[in-house]
Amino acid sequence: MRLAEAGASDASRAAATRAMLHASLVGVDSHGVRLTGHYCRMLAGGRLSKDPQLGVDKRGAGSAMVDGADGLGHYAAYKAVEVGMELAREAGVGAVGIKNSSHLGAAGAYALAGAEEGFVTFATTNTDSMVALFDGAQKFHGTNPLAFAAPVPGSRPWLLDMATSSIPLNRVLLHRSLDKALPVGVAATPDGEMTTDPHEADMLLPLGGTDYGYKGAALAGVATLFSALLTGTTLDPDFIPMYGGDDISTPRNMGHFVLVIDPAKFAGRAAFGAAITTYLTALRGSPVREGGRVMAPGDREWEELDRRRAEGIPVDPDTVAFLGL
Amino acid sequence: MRLAEAGASDASRAAATRAMLHASLVGVDSHGVRLTGHYCRMLAGGRLSKDPQLGVDKRGAGSAMVDGADGLGHYAAYKAVEVGMELAREAGVGAVGIKNSSHLGAAGAYALAGAEEGFVTFATTNTDSMVALFDGAQKFHGTNPLAFAAPVPGSRPWLLDMATSSIPLNRVLLHRSLDKALPVGVAATPDGEMTTDPHEADMLLPLGGTDYGYKGAALAGVATLFSALLTGTTLDPDFIPMYGGDDISTPRNMGHFVLVIDPAKFAGRAAFGAAITTYLTALRGSPVREGGRVMAPGDREWEELDRRRAEGIPVDPDTVAFLGL
Repeated sequence: MRLAEAGASDASRAAATRAMLHASLVGVDSHGVRLTGHYCRMLAGGRLSKDPQLGVDKRGAGSAMVDGADGLGHYAAYKAVEVGMELAREAGVGAVGIKNSSHLGAAGAYALAGAEEGFVTFATTNTDSMVALFDGAQKFHGTNPLAFAAPVPGSRPWLLDMATSSIPLNRVLLHRSLDKALPVGVAATPDGEMTTDPHEADMLLPLGGTDYGYKGAALAGVATLFSALLTGTTLDPDFIPMYGGDDISTPRNMGHFVLVIDPAKFAGRAAFGAAITTYLTALRGSPVREGGRVMAPGDREWEELDRRRAEGIPVDPDTVAFLGL
Repeated sequence: MRLAEAGASDASRAAATRAMLHASLVGVDSHGVRLTGHYCRMLAGGRLSKDPQLGVDKRGAGSAMVDGADGLGHYAAYKAVEVGMELAREAGVGAVGIKNSSHLGAAGAYALAGAEEGFVTFATTNTDSMVALFDGAQKFHGTNPLAFAAPVPGSRPWLLDMATSSIPLNRVLLHRSLDKALPVGVAATPDGEMTTDPHEADMLLPLGGTDYGYKGAALAGVATLFSALLTGTTLDPDFIPMYGGDDISTPRNMGHFVLVIDPAKFAGRAAFGAAITTYLTALRGSPVREGGRVMAPGDREWEELDRRRAEGIPVDPDTVAFLGL
């Protein structure tokens, strides 16, 4: 079964496929092709519209709202980057909110899409609650990613795509299946007490751990601020569950946010390109601690991409069966 | 000795005083009134211009560069917020880079200035190198703050002002003077090895500590990306030292970046206000772990502000003597 057989329009499944392949190629398998089955089920259930007609409402010379029309979130998010770039070419910046959307996969895909066209790009989304607040005893924020990317002349972009929790939920599930202790400060029991026991772990802790987790929790709030509060969409604890709930027919009205900046309107493209090149050369060439390795954001992902382009994307047996590979 | 006696123009010292009082009132003493002496020395030395004539260069409907004219950084940064708000009222967003600036104190002061006028505001700066990269053995990034603020109807703003290191350098100095061990994962020896010995500690480690510090290092890079690379100003390792160097006559060409967003162009001011109120009510009312307390970003600062408005700002003896209090 593929997205086309599930009835997704050409445009929306092209966007979803592009985003899933990005994630699978850079090693973020949780947001890669294995989600195809989930999306097909949601298209069949009616949560996702098969033929979404996106709306674009320009609100000012640098601002717009994209209406995702309840289709695959990747379609609305890539559209928002396009709209943002169009605004930024004239205004210097494009701030684009997205409403009536759904799961968009890896936020980094959209930051990257802007950077590949020469723009500094920020993309974020809020997601289903699974991270405690600092000192909290409830799943409050999602793993709410912050993704930034910037063009680098003659090279792949600088790319940061980070969850605002220390680890993703998948890591807990993996440790549970291996019966292996979790690192300190990344997960908590239902009472909010930190635990390294993957079987006891009920929720994630924010980046910064038991001492500085107020920073990670606040960064998750930044994602919610831009994605949900500014766009008037669903708050993290109010989402109909992505997985496991009975309701797969009601749209989730997820929001995202994209910011696109044209370096031409600031230092200038040439000066920006020279500066980021100098910066990355200094960073990659800086002294390391024994046994360590210094990398720029994205370096690990681009290495993985080269490896997977050569060797292929590892796909789990369930996904192989589902896709009929 | 005060800033006026040191020759700072009325406008530039009013801005510096406003920013220092913000920091002192919310408890960020390192960026508060105790810096007056430092700024006076830099005004006398010639690093800081006494009568800076700010330049504003509009680059597009949503973008501008502010030239700080080598004056007190607070002056240029508040000006950038004003310019950003003016742009955002029409364009929906204002992205303002700042060049030829200097130390701006607490970045949160500028995020707050926008939020107090009803705008979602982001402010950042890069600063002198003192934080290792993940696995690095060199001071590379500064403590590079990310500050966000958002208006809340009938209440003080949501306010996040965080360093991208776990702790500030002052904390190391305090522990050194008390001969007290540092927390795990916040500081390193000159070889980049994590240490809890404050006497051995030579540099800070990025937020996320020994396991997830690549996230904090990347966030420090975001500050540098917006503040220095986009504006064409000085990279973190290339600053003439703020303190302790011989050169106090050469301007440092520090850059900052401010982003101002008008909720009126997205969900609308009323809907945004309702959403952030709902969000904060849910957050502050959510279950806590035993002995814990859940706070929204800024709550601690506003409590401290109330306390200090009632009880006064604690000032160290050196600063008392310098200010002639």
